Amino acid sequence: MIDYLVQQKARISHALDSYLHGEMKQLFERHPFGPDVADRLVDFSGRGKMIRGALVYLGAELYGHSEPGPATTRLACVMELLQSFLLIHDDIMDGDLLRRGAPSVFAQYEHMGRERQLADPRHFGESMGICAGDVAIFLATALVAHDEVPEGLERKLLRLISTEIARVGLAQMSDVYHGVYPGQVPEQEIIDLYRFKTGRYTFSLPLMCGATIAHAPESDVSTLGLIGEGLGVVFQIKDDYIGLFGETDAIGKTVGSDIASDKKTLYRTFLFDAATEAERARLDTIFGSPDPDADDIDYVLGCMQDHGVVSRVESVLLAYADDTRDTIRNSLPNMPAEGRELLERLLEYNLTREA
Amino acid sequence: MIDYLVQQKARISHALDSYLHGEMKQLFERHPFGPDVADRLVDFSGRGKMIRGALVYLGAELYGHSEPGPATTRLACVMELLQSFLLIHDDIMDGDLLRRGAPSVFAQYEHMGRERQLADPRHFGESMGICAGDVAIFLATALVAHDEVPEGLERKLLRLISTEIARVGLAQMSDVYHGVYPGQVPEQEIIDLYRFKTGRYTFSLPLMCGATIAHAPESDVSTLGLIGEGLGVVFQIKDDYIGLFGETDAIGKTVGSDIASDKKTLYRTFLFDAATEAERARLDTIFGSPDPDADDIDYVLGCMQDHGVVSRVESVLLAYADDTRDTIRNSLPNMPAEGRELLERLLEYNLTREA
Repeated sequence: MIDYLVQQKARISHALDSYLHGEMKQLFERHPFGPDVADRLVDFSGRGKMIRGALVYLGAELYGHSEPGPATTRLACVMELLQSFLLIHDDIMDGDLLRRGAPSVFAQYEHMGRERQLADPRHFGESMGICAGDVAIFLATALVAHDEVPEGLERKLLRLISTEIARVGLAQMSDVYHGVYPGQVPEQEIIDLYRFKTGRYTFSLPLMCGATIAHAPESDVSTLGLIGEGLGVVFQIKDDYIGLFGETDAIGKTVGSDIASDKKTLYRTFLFDAATEAERARLDTIFGSPDPDADDIDYVLGCMQDHGVVSRVESVLLAYADDTRDTIRNSLPNMPAEGRELLERLLEYNLTREA
Repeated sequence: MIDYLVQQKARISHALDSYLHGEMKQLFERHPFGPDVADRLVDFSGRGKMIRGALVYLGAELYGHSEPGPATTRLACVMELLQSFLLIHDDIMDGDLLRRGAPSVFAQYEHMGRERQLADPRHFGESMGICAGDVAIFLATALVAHDEVPEGLERKLLRLISTEIARVGLAQMSDVYHGVYPGQVPEQEIIDLYRFKTGRYTFSLPLMCGATIAHAPESDVSTLGLIGEGLGVVFQIKDDYIGLFGETDAIGKTVGSDIASDKKTLYRTFLFDAATEAERARLDTIFGSPDPDADDIDYVLGCMQDHGVVSRVESVLLAYADDTRDTIRNSLPNMPAEGRELLERLLEYNLTREA
């Protein structure tokens, strides 16, 4: 499955590059920072795996569109521009300096501010990052109105995209709140965030866009939305796992950054539930500390192993995986069998990926 | 003219309120911060004069649509949601705590963070403000896809809105840079910013949307774009004047905030051009200082009077006004005479307004 997804990247990268450096060139050239931000957006987008863009192709292929037309590619670019916008803004909120194996966009501008000896380079970087994210959004919505997107589909797609990304923004507010909220976040609230932020956004939205382009019936499109939620819960739990147990090089962000930002993962909730009072006292000093060292991180991971946190999280993961598999097999009457097989392979990929 | 514009506000406010609290209620209710942000967006939008929304009605009326249909109202709401998004993000960049006579949105969330004793309430406020602005964007784009917007117009409108707001984002990057750049910004760069940021956004975009809804010929729609640039230069210079010489209560933001944020206005450029070395030394300590006091501000204004800065800026203003008047009179062959009169009245309003 990952091969299928990664294979789409060249096509999406190419289309994004000609959109920003070709079709939109004139727009950018009229502004002092225009060419600069176009370059950064192409570079930043190109560093990602472009899974969301690729899932638009998959969504179309589920309903037999194995030779995707230009509208599918346009929509894949929309997904990747929106993903860049979200990451650019998220990194400002989380203070993450590293993303996709390179400085995050606001960190790049912070660096520019420092080089040019501007006052408060951090705030300069954040402000430029906010703008760069905003620009990416409207480059994306302009693409939905592109001539290559058939006029009857455009309204459905715009409505779908707008609703789902508004939802991501609302979920992100909870995420920001959880990030600084010193207490425990209950399991269900975390799962809801995974369903709405990761699930509906990373999986439901691109699959629904692809299926819409392939003229799938509306009932199937909404079932795909639910399946996306399940795929998202599985993906996000796995992501949290990799964030804790992966390698910095492989994951493209700093190991321990979820601990430093006190991200309210299931691992954290289950860990604090199970920890002794003495452990909790030390854990409290580590989660949310600006720069936890290797010993701190080892301590956290050791406690998790001791209290069976990892296997408890895994059983949640497997329950969602089973439910989702069930929905794929039994609730998509209009999807060809090959489509259902592809979706199952995607689920298995989410379950077994290691980076 | 201002009466005409202000009269539209009740209708836009009402439509925005039923959109956010009615049609979109379910979306908001599924998220812990949803109802909160819906309330804040309705309240924040409602505190503005809603000039941009009203200009959509005017744009339609220019071409004889004096009884606006539901699409016009939807587009007016789009303009106001986009205006709220831009102000919310701008206030974060400028650190403006006061807007529209009340705390800015990020300042409201900063206050929430302080009340709930969260770590770093300022950063919490900024993060929540970024999200609130992002949510406002997608509430706006969802409206462009509303059933009440005729399908043939939707694509044109989405393309227009996306391009113009991408432009605003690019111009905003220059604005951010100018804000911390310690040197002089040349007159032409400032004027370009006024054309692209204020002009095309505040005037061109809503007028072009309204004219598009009224099926104006495309050549007229692009001329309206140019007229909007001129209207914007006039409006913005006047805005800078009011920011320097107005009263805090009347303008809804702190007098001196443009000086504190070292905003690169024409007044500032002309002042530094004309000032003696001794004056410049003191001015350097005032522009960009976090909290200039009344004496500092009086000193700045006194220097401007001494060097004839105010009348020099005024002559720039009048030159743009003359050009714009000329274009209105001679370059809109398809617009009824009543339309041209309305546009001239708008220009006169921009020239003479005092708050």
